[in-house]
Amino acid sequence: MILPDIQNTTPEFKIPIDKVGIKNLKYPIKVLDRNKGLQATIGEFNIYVDLPSRFKGTHMSRFVEVLNEFKDEIHIKNIGMILKKLKERLNAKSAHLEVFFPYFIEKKAPITNALGLMEYQAFVKASLYSKIKEGEDLILGVKVPVMTLCPCSKSISKFGAHNQRGLITIAVKFKKFIWLEELIEIAEKSASSPVYPILKRPDEKFVTEKAYENPKFVEDVARTVAEKLLSRKEIYWFSVEVENFESIHGHNAYAFLEIKRD
Amino acid sequence: MILPDIQNTTPEFKIPIDKVGIKNLKYPIKVLDRNKGLQATIGEFNIYVDLPSRFKGTHMSRFVEVLNEFKDEIHIKNIGMILKKLKERLNAKSAHLEVFFPYFIEKKAPITNALGLMEYQAFVKASLYSKIKEGEDLILGVKVPVMTLCPCSKSISKFGAHNQRGLITIAVKFKKFIWLEELIEIAEKSASSPVYPILKRPDEKFVTEKAYENPKFVEDVARTVAEKLLSRKEIYWFSVEVENFESIHGHNAYAFLEIKRD
Amino acid sequence: MILPDIQNTTPEFKIPIDKVGIKNLKYPIKVLDRNKGLQATIGEFNIYVDLPSRFKGTHMSRFVEVLNEFKDEIHIKNIGMILKKLKERLNAKSAHLEVFFPYFIEKKAPITNALGLMEYQAFVKASLYSKIKEGEDLILGVKVPVMTLCPCSKSISKFGAHNQRGLITIAVKFKKFIWLEELIEIAEKSASSPVYPILKRPDEKFVTEKAYENPKFVEDVARTVAEKLLSRKEIYWFSVEVENFESIHGHNAYAFLEIKRD
Amino acid sequence: MILPDIQNTTPEFKIPIDKVGIKNLKYPIKVLDRNKGLQATIGEFNIYVDLPSRFKGTHMSRFVEVLNEFKDEIHIKNIGMILKKLKERLNAKSAHLEVFFPYFIEKKAPITNALGLMEYQAFVKASLYSKIKEGEDLILGVKVPVMTLCPCSKSISKFGAHNQRGLITIAVKFKKFIWLEELIEIAEKSASSPVYPILKRPDEKFVTEKAYENPKFVEDVARTVAEKLLSRKEIYWFSVEVENFESIHGHNAYAFLEIKRD
Repeated sequence: MILPDIQNTTPEFKIPIDKVGIKNLKYPIKVLDRNKGLQATIGEFNIYVDLPSRFKGTHMSRFVEVLNEFKDEIHIKNIGMILKKLKERLNAKSAHLEVFFPYFIEKKAPITNALGLMEYQAFVKASLYSKIKEGEDLILGVKVPVMTLCPCSKSISKFGAHNQRGLITIAVKFKKFIWLEELIEIAEKSASSPVYPILKRPDEKFVTEKAYENPKFVEDVARTVAEKLLSRKEIYWFSVEVENFESIHGHNAYAFLEIKRD
Repeated sequence: MILPDIQNTTPEFKIPIDKVGIKNLKYPIKVLDRNKGLQATIGEFNIYVDLPSRFKGTHMSRFVEVLNEFKDEIHIKNIGMILKKLKERLNAKSAHLEVFFPYFIEKKAPITNALGLMEYQAFVKASLYSKIKEGEDLILGVKVPVMTLCPCSKSISKFGAHNQRGLITIAVKFKKFIWLEELIEIAEKSASSPVYPILKRPDEKFVTEKAYENPKFVEDVARTVAEKLLSRKEIYWFSVEVENFESIHGHNAYAFLEIKRD
Repeated sequence: MILPDIQNTTPEFKIPIDKVGIKNLKYPIKVLDRNKGLQATIGEFNIYVDLPSRFKGTHMSRFVEVLNEFKDEIHIKNIGMILKKLKERLNAKSAHLEVFFPYFIEKKAPITNALGLMEYQAFVKASLYSKIKEGEDLILGVKVPVMTLCPCSKSISKFGAHNQRGLITIAVKFKKFIWLEELIEIAEKSASSPVYPILKRPDEKFVTEKAYENPKFVEDVARTVAEKLLSRKEIYWFSVEVENFESIHGHNAYAFLEIKRD
Repeated sequence: MILPDIQNTTPEFKIPIDKVGIKNLKYPIKVLDRNKGLQATIGEFNIYVDLPSRFKGTHMSRFVEVLNEFKDEIHIKNIGMILKKLKERLNAKSAHLEVFFPYFIEKKAPITNALGLMEYQAFVKASLYSKIKEGEDLILGVKVPVMTLCPCSKSISKFGAHNQRGLITIAVKFKKFIWLEELIEIAEKSASSPVYPILKRPDEKFVTEKAYENPKFVEDVARTVAEKLLSRKEIYWFSVEVENFESIHGHNAYAFLEIKRD
């Protein structure tokens, strides 16, 4: 029995669709890890192609099929290949892939060297268009929890200073590969202090004092990250977001900047 | 045309169902406000009844119909009536209603008296059983963001102390009505400092110094809240949860206790 | 005692910041309602200004102060005024406001006319720049849950067809005011069927049969919405997103298109 | 330098705390997989102990240290050991561990056998008290997305029937180990149809028709799961939750039941 292919029929309204595909598909992946080579983790995927005005629908099952073909080899080096296959298999002019995943790094406490695993939310967003613009459409990003201590509070108070967990989101486009570890390091060095999975008392003392001596507004953090990213010539575009879960308010403080290099 | 009532037929497996109904229904409500009498807000409802083993299904549309009949009069004083109507309309032995809603209180900054609105997430959970046990099954609760400053960090550090936003969740059963405002006051007085919608510099100085002089672990906060609730004789059960968004970690610190009075 | 104004000092890195301000502030608001004039609801605000490279920080308390001054008059007609005040009070060249809020419309069941309240998530995003470009930077949007029935499934199956809840997100820029109610109507007419708060059995029969006779892919829904928006000359930009919580998969189907009129 | 141990001092209010510890800690884990032996995934942990009234605070860093010691060996067989170590290390009378994790199973499409990976959210909740009650306090659970087709809609409509994605949550306590795969199978066999990662057209036809021939209310699904769990004598307690993302409403339908065997 031949089942009709409704997707290939003509739509009522001939309007091209920018992106059509699947959202929130979870899939185990491997990502490049500076120390271990590869790290196994779990990705949440959004995958789209464009749809010309003459086709009623795309073929949703093929998106998952393409992922399946790469199976144990879904990592950043293969994303160009995945997009290429998606474009081919779906007869599309453009293909887009977004994947969000937890990434773990072993981290030592600053004084006792107590080891623990820190988790970071990372992401890759990639697009492939008909005319390939090399590297141009890959964004690598990561969210890094940090500690920020308020310069105003420190300056006006007899003792103490309010501080809080903040979240730095860095996204970059680059000409030469950059490790997630490098972006994380940039973020952690730009705040009042990094945060840690394990802190024994001597470590907690160190972190508390370090943050107190190193006060930063969200604005300061965003600019410090930007300054460090500007010094990396292989990065030709980036955005920095900093969100502070203010300890003195129920709402958050926020800063955002975006720089495209000439 | 008479449409068959499938719900009233006999199910394949004659197993009674504890709770059946609707979830995540949003509805505008009025809640009791100590200052203004009534406050308009928006509730998210879960509403259930039990279903005896002999009926295949409940009648989902009646849950919304009952809410509709109360329309502008959905507040805590009417919850008993709503549950009673639900039980009747659905021929049930028990009825359950949970509603979660934002609640606003005007709050002054501690020094400048700058006025702003603080939002708290509040909730009511109520059950009515066949034999009415007066008052016994109503829980009133609220989540209160606060500031906590770590006693350990303060004690071991030359200067400063890590602090962060925490969230206190209080739930109570009572014999005599208690205002949300009272629970919020108890929570805010049990932390290192309340948080505020607006703080000018003199206020920020005050809050910073107050928190520094008033360090509290999550455990301390939970116990202080409990101590205050124990002094209120009209409360015969309560639970206290405290969650700290630790400024030195990516994960949270947590304490929970529950006390039922004899 | 004069407290130092750290925000007004010079930053270490003189990099301009695109957006700085507050996030996730909840505040009661009034929004324009086609039937009732005004509807009271609760907004979640993000409010930002730009920060020139020469200033270390913005003054976060002023964002909430400005909101407070408008208090009971926070609705779409006043957004231009709010942005203007923000720009002035914070000495900024640009100001941005995003507000997300639940919006309720009374809705009749299609056959029995049973009345209930439907909730929609709506939003406004507005920006004001130094040189005012009239109307250009206001986006009005709404998320509308609908029912979609799969044309492929219907066409290939002997009976039945898989269907599911979908969510249409419309965002528009316009030259002449458009009601949320109009956007909602466009969305609901573009799916296989609207969804309803209350359906009695004759209504459920009607909706089931209507959806079966009116199958739509996410692509069809997106295009039908686009076609309807294109016929409204006062709209000069729009985007349409459709997400289907596929009943046959654990992941979602998705379509997106954006059109800017010449 | 010896840093003071504030946690070991006496609290202001001598109230025992039921649970104190850490929340939302992400950590890579291995879980038992019926086909592959072990499956690598990522857990989100809540870990608590009790705190007697005489101690001011617990030692938060030790929770993460204990996890670290098990590192690559965090799976269900070791949970008893982890709890034991927690109790010892923290001098507690009880220890509690909750872990939530995505779990993947390779799944064939029903007709074409197209292979894909299905993701399920699973969880383990375990407690250890001073007097060990063997096995008594371990709960294994899983959330299974399924398809449900409304019996009422089918019965009253000329053609078609509304259907939707539903989510079944099963939690069990057992005397003899049960695989997650078994719980998932029970859930998938209790709905109108399982859902799949990949469906080609012949599969979609099959699923559509199967669901149409197999209509189920949330109540029916809950009871069918319960019936199947009752036939497994090694299970001495279970709860079943079913939530339908109704395709004809903006809110959800819900059923819950809990059975403790004598």
